[in-house]
Amino acid sequence: MPKLDVVIDMGNPFLNLTVDAFFKIGSVAATRAAAEDAYHVLRKGTISSHNFEHTLKKMCKEGAYWGTVAGVYVGMEYGVERIRGTRDWKNAMIGGALTGALVSAASSNNRDKIAIDAITGGAVATAAEFLNYLT
Amino acid sequence: MPKLDVVIDMGNPFLNLTVDAFFKIGSVAATRAAAEDAYHVLRKGTISSHNFEHTLKKMCKEGAYWGTVAGVYVGMEYGVERIRGTRDWKNAMIGGALTGALVSAASSNNRDKIAIDAITGGAVATAAEFLNYLT
Repeated sequence: MPKLDVVIDMGNPFLNLTVDAFFKIGSVAATRAAAEDAYHVLRKGTISSHNFEHTLKKMCKEGAYWGTVAGVYVGMEYGVERIRGTRDWKNAMIGGALTGALVSAASSNNRDKIAIDAITGGAVATAAEFLNYLT
Repeated sequence: MPKLDVVIDMGNPFLNLTVDAFFKIGSVAATRAAAEDAYHVLRKGTISSHNFEHTLKKMCKEGAYWGTVAGVYVGMEYGVERIRGTRDWKNAMIGGALTGALVSAASSNNRDKIAIDAITGGAVATAAEFLNYLT
């Protein structure tokens, strides 16, 4: 998990929030990957050590990926809050858009895809914030 | 918006929450669809009334779809809270899984897809709930 080390080395004030987000959302993503594979194993009725190794690798990969996305998002939202000086749903929208653009830019060179991912990231974060106020 | 009318006709106690979720998340989804199309128009540099009509239709469709998903989720989470008698992240997980299964079952007959969508719905709702506690 080199990305976690980078965050720790930075020693910035967002440290605790970002690391927390990484582990919490990372473990949710890893559990989801495990549950999905367990479902396929149950359906097929066979299990092999190869399957298990594959699941474990997928859990690490998905956990690290979504954990990183969540860490970036929490850091961005916190940063936006500091810069704007207020807490409202617009922070989620801006933070989500920045996260979507950053994560997309890290994995792709397609400028159109990056812009659409930024729009989608902002929409998902805004929707999660609204649901949050409701429940 | 026939789905909204159905909810109102039911006159159930989840009414306000569900309608609220429908409109809030529906408008986020419609805005996202509009922003995505606006980006494509800006990139291409041309705009026609056909484009505008298409965007409006897409906004209504995506808004109604995601609004319905959000309404079902809020209703499910509220129902799970009443049945379990407590409020914690497990409500989000169960509500998300039920919503994923229901929405997937409404649009597909593939049992594998429904199960995977239930797992994914639960994971997304759990992740949103965790982010919520962090920020």
